Amino acid sequence: MIRVSIIGFGNVGTHLYTAFSDGPMAEVVAVYSRNPQRFDGWEDLPVVSDFTSLPEVDCTLIAVADDAIAAVSSALSTTAGLVAHTSGNAPLDAIDEKHRSGVFYPLQSFSKRPVAFSTIPICLEAETEASYQLLTTLASSLSERVVRIDSAARARLHLAAVFANNFVNHLYSVSEKILAEHELDFSLLHPLILETAQRLSEVAPSEAQTGPAVREDQQTIKKQLHLLNDSAFQALYQQLTKSIATTHGKKL
Amino acid sequence: MIRVSIIGFGNVGTHLYTAFSDGPMAEVVAVYSRNPQRFDGWEDLPVVSDFTSLPEVDCTLIAVADDAIAAVSSALSTTAGLVAHTSGNAPLDAIDEKHRSGVFYPLQSFSKRPVAFSTIPICLEAETEASYQLLTTLASSLSERVVRIDSAARARLHLAAVFANNFVNHLYSVSEKILAEHELDFSLLHPLILETAQRLSEVAPSEAQTGPAVREDQQTIKKQLHLLNDSAFQALYQQLTKSIATTHGKKL
Repeated sequence: MIRVSIIGFGNVGTHLYTAFSDGPMAEVVAVYSRNPQRFDGWEDLPVVSDFTSLPEVDCTLIAVADDAIAAVSSALSTTAGLVAHTSGNAPLDAIDEKHRSGVFYPLQSFSKRPVAFSTIPICLEAETEASYQLLTTLASSLSERVVRIDSAARARLHLAAVFANNFVNHLYSVSEKILAEHELDFSLLHPLILETAQRLSEVAPSEAQTGPAVREDQQTIKKQLHLLNDSAFQALYQQLTKSIATTHGKKL
Repeated sequence: MIRVSIIGFGNVGTHLYTAFSDGPMAEVVAVYSRNPQRFDGWEDLPVVSDFTSLPEVDCTLIAVADDAIAAVSSALSTTAGLVAHTSGNAPLDAIDEKHRSGVFYPLQSFSKRPVAFSTIPICLEAETEASYQLLTTLASSLSERVVRIDSAARARLHLAAVFANNFVNHLYSVSEKILAEHELDFSLLHPLILETAQRLSEVAPSEAQTGPAVREDQQTIKKQLHLLNDSAFQALYQQLTKSIATTHGKKL
């Protein structure tokens, strides 16, 4: 078994702990959080209360906020083994140079909801081939999709994820607000939203584009902009309409 | 059985035909399309080749482009029965006033993909209570979710659907393009995209918002704007970031 420590016990840390505990390859021998209340409700966790009492392990995974990675990694002693962070956004060299360093980035938005780890792409990077092999063994025990991605490519991947997750979720919010103003239930849109996401497995989004902007349907656009008078979302509607038209070579 | 004609045999018309044919309440006795090649590959369709040869029916559903609804409805004789269009965008009075009029709007983005009609909200409107009852009987035979929504509310619903479907799909396209420029596979984002959509059944999008804008993470925003230098999507990133910050009371 590969001996692993997990630093940070938020959504990423807890899902990694659960996935490794259920898997065959790794034993999580230590978990640390600066917020011990995170451990409430868990049983038999190998909690350590400070950095100096961490046992010697093969690999330490850092699942903390991006801006804390450098400080955490420099506080860890070299008994932490290969030290990898789990961020889509931080570069490999965010890890203190005294360690063998790596990145172990599961590309998913983790919440309290259960996840099917086997479908989540795990993006790996490491300084040395030996480190990369160790991360691959760990990642392959959790997921069917393990990819090698360097820091520059991961930054692009993270940017794309901001569009496909954070920005998309904001558009869901905008819809919810437009409906709430008229006492319409947001759940009316759930089947449409799911279909829009699910059809991506069959049709590329650029080929699936519909709506007034790509149809050059000026009348509907004008009507909808009018409905958004006095709304904070009118400028957003205009920008998105313009972006769709430009992308698809339409004039509006 | 309720006798039904369907005018228009695009994605909406074909899915309605299939759903009624599989259902217990309605018999589709006539389908018409101005593009007869739409009927290629279908068997035993009750095709009529022009408007004058439509049989007398209880209800005619018009599944054509919004700007053709008025012309189609005025071309239909009064043997067409209750005449309802299927658009989220057109008002009830798009139907020629010689008919008993209605709206039968299934809130979904139809493509060639199969759909689970039972989960699709069907939004109804009618001039008279008798017409509304007939539409309700038809809609309830297809879907578990039938809602009465007037033209003004439906216009808002359609606007909300533009944000949640058309605009969301464009953001998927943007992600795809950002990844393609670096030879990264868009399918890496599929699990993230599905999770973002699926969690709406448990958490409101306004409560699920994550990402640099809501964290007021200036450093990441600056870095990502820099990655979008020379990109047509930089302005879109800025507008969405601003909209998220404003919505969540953040200053950026």
